[in-house]
Amino acid sequence: MAITAREILLKSRPEGMPRAENFELVTVELDSPGPGEVLVRNEWMSVDPYMRGRMYDRPSYVPPFELGKALQGGAVGRVVESGDERFAPGDLVESMFGWREAYIAPAPMLTKLPDVGAPPQAFLGVLGMPGMTAYTGFHRIGAPKEGDVVFVSGAGGAVGSSVCQIAKIRGCTVIASAGSDEKLEWLKSVGVDEVVNYKKTPDLLKAVQAAAPKGVDIYFDNVGGDHLEVALEVARPFARFIECGMIAIYNDAEPKPGPRNMAYVVGKRIKMQGFIVFDFIDMKEQFFADMSQWVREGRIKWQETVEIGVENAPKAFLQLFSGGNAGKMLVKLD
Amino acid sequence: MAITAREILLKSRPEGMPRAENFELVTVELDSPGPGEVLVRNEWMSVDPYMRGRMYDRPSYVPPFELGKALQGGAVGRVVESGDERFAPGDLVESMFGWREAYIAPAPMLTKLPDVGAPPQAFLGVLGMPGMTAYTGFHRIGAPKEGDVVFVSGAGGAVGSSVCQIAKIRGCTVIASAGSDEKLEWLKSVGVDEVVNYKKTPDLLKAVQAAAPKGVDIYFDNVGGDHLEVALEVARPFARFIECGMIAIYNDAEPKPGPRNMAYVVGKRIKMQGFIVFDFIDMKEQFFADMSQWVREGRIKWQETVEIGVENAPKAFLQLFSGGNAGKMLVKLD
Repeated sequence: MAITAREILLKSRPEGMPRAENFELVTVELDSPGPGEVLVRNEWMSVDPYMRGRMYDRPSYVPPFELGKALQGGAVGRVVESGDERFAPGDLVESMFGWREAYIAPAPMLTKLPDVGAPPQAFLGVLGMPGMTAYTGFHRIGAPKEGDVVFVSGAGGAVGSSVCQIAKIRGCTVIASAGSDEKLEWLKSVGVDEVVNYKKTPDLLKAVQAAAPKGVDIYFDNVGGDHLEVALEVARPFARFIECGMIAIYNDAEPKPGPRNMAYVVGKRIKMQGFIVFDFIDMKEQFFADMSQWVREGRIKWQETVEIGVENAPKAFLQLFSGGNAGKMLVKLD
Repeated sequence: MAITAREILLKSRPEGMPRAENFELVTVELDSPGPGEVLVRNEWMSVDPYMRGRMYDRPSYVPPFELGKALQGGAVGRVVESGDERFAPGDLVESMFGWREAYIAPAPMLTKLPDVGAPPQAFLGVLGMPGMTAYTGFHRIGAPKEGDVVFVSGAGGAVGSSVCQIAKIRGCTVIASAGSDEKLEWLKSVGVDEVVNYKKTPDLLKAVQAAAPKGVDIYFDNVGGDHLEVALEVARPFARFIECGMIAIYNDAEPKPGPRNMAYVVGKRIKMQGFIVFDFIDMKEQFFADMSQWVREGRIKWQETVEIGVENAPKAFLQLFSGGNAGKMLVKLD
C-alpha cells in the first residue's frame, strides 16, 4: 500500500512571535512499513507551548527542531498496516509523530493506548503529557497539604486547568488566573474558588491579593513575567513555586528583566523548581491510575479547542500565545 | 555591683545605604542581675548582612529592629555576675545581645560555650551562625556530590569562605567570586580552584564561564543581582541554587529588575531555594561535630577583619556593603 499524507515542516526559525511563513505544508508518499515498522494514520495531534523552545537553535532539554523537517509533537492515531507483531491494524497508538497526517515509525516509538472509556484525544490532554505535567509537578514539587492556598497562572490551558482540579481534589483553596472571562467561568464551574482575569484587571497584584488575602502556599507557574513577580509578593513563608513554563516570555526576541522582588526567595524561604514531565517519569503509573479514575468519576473535566486539518496546525499553535484556546488545543486530522 | 556600658541604638531607619547618623551611641547603667538573670560583659560582637533587613519596617522572618532601642546580633562574652545557678562568673556565653558592651539577660537567652580549642570569636564565625549557615544550606539544599562544580558568590565573607572550604572537603570543584584580589588569594591558599574578581572583570559572565567551562551544579548565592543572572546562565541541568542572601540588592531604595534569564529555571530544571539558618536547626549537632573537628584538623580556616570598640560597630557594619571585610567582620569590645 502506498498512501500520500500531508505534513508541516519548519521552514525558518521564528524571531519573536512565530508567523505563518515559518511553516510549510508538504505532501509525502508513504510505502508499506518494513519489518518492525508500523504505518499509522493520525486522528489527533497536539500543539503545546513547549514547542516554541524547540524552534530556537540553542541547547535545551530536547534538541531543536530541524529546519526542512516535519515538526514533532504528541499525536494519537490508528494503525493502518503493521510490520511488527505487537501492533495490528485498528490499534489506537500514541506517538511524538504529530504535525503529519500519517507516518511510518519503528514499533518501539509507539505506545498502544488502553481503553479507559475516554475519547482518544484525552490521551493528548488530561490523560497525556499535559495531565501528567500537572499531576507530577503539583505533587512532587508542590507537596500540597489540605488547606493550602494554590495560585495557578495560565489556568485556562491544558496543564493549568488540570492543576486547578487536582488541587481541589487535594483539599486546597484554588486561585486561578487566565485571560478570558469564558475560561474563568468554566474554571469556577469545576470548583475553582477565586479567579482573576489578568487581561482585564488594572493591577494584577491587587487582584491576586484580594483573591488570596492570606497569601499563597503553592504557585503553579505556566506564565512567568509579571505573574511570577506577583506570586513572589503574595507568597507565604516556605511557599513552593512549581516552574512549569513561562509562556509570557517565550517569544521575547530581547530578554526582559525578571522579577524585582527576587529577595523574597531568601526572606520567605521560597523553593522554586523547574521541571519537565520526563523528570518524574517514575510517577507515570500512579498518575494514570489516579487521573483515569478521576476522569471516570467526573472529578476531572476538560475543555478542548479544536482546529480541523493539518494545514491549520500552525494556526492552532499560534493561538496558544494569544490565549485563543480554552483548555486543550488540538488539531483533528481527517 | 553597678556598671556603665555603652551601646548602639537604631536612631532612624536607613533609606538605601545606611549612614552613620542612623545610629546613636549611648551609655546605660546596669545594676546587679535579679534572680534568674545574668550580667555579661561582651568580648566580641558580630555584624552580619542580614541585619540590614531588620532595619526596614516591614514584615520578615524576624521582627524589625525597634527605633530608639539597642540593636541586636550575635555576641560572645563572659559572665560577670549571675543570678542563675546554671551560670558562674567567668563562663563564656553566646547571645543575641550584640551592639552593647554589657547587658543583663534572662539565663535561658544565653548559651554556655564549650572549649573546643578555638578562640572565642570563632563562635561568631565558622563555629557560629555563619558557619552553620554555610554548612546547613550547602548540604541540605545543595545536596553535593563528589565532582560537582560549585560557584560561590560573596566568597570572601564569613559564610562564603566556609562554603568554599566545606565544598572542597566534599570533593567538589570550587569557583569563588569576591571583590578583592587579597580575598581571592586567601581563598586560593585554602584550596579554591578558580577565582573571579567581580569588581575587576569587564564581563562577569565570560569570567565565570572561563572559570567553570563545564558549567555549575551548585550555586551558593550571597549576592543576588548580576551574579544570580550569571549563575542561571552557567547552570547545568538540575543545578541547585542555595539562596542565602542578596547583599547586592539589600540597600536598593527602588527595587531593581531581576535576572533576564529566569526561563532557565524551567528549561534547566533548576531548584532555587531560600533559607535561613534556623530552618535547619535539626542539623546543629552534626554541624558542630563536623566543623569543630575540621577546625581542629586545620581543614577549615578563616580570616577576620576586626574593628575595636562598640563605637565602631556601625563602621564595621557598613564595611560589609563596601566589601571592606576579608572573612568574618567582628567588633572587639574592650
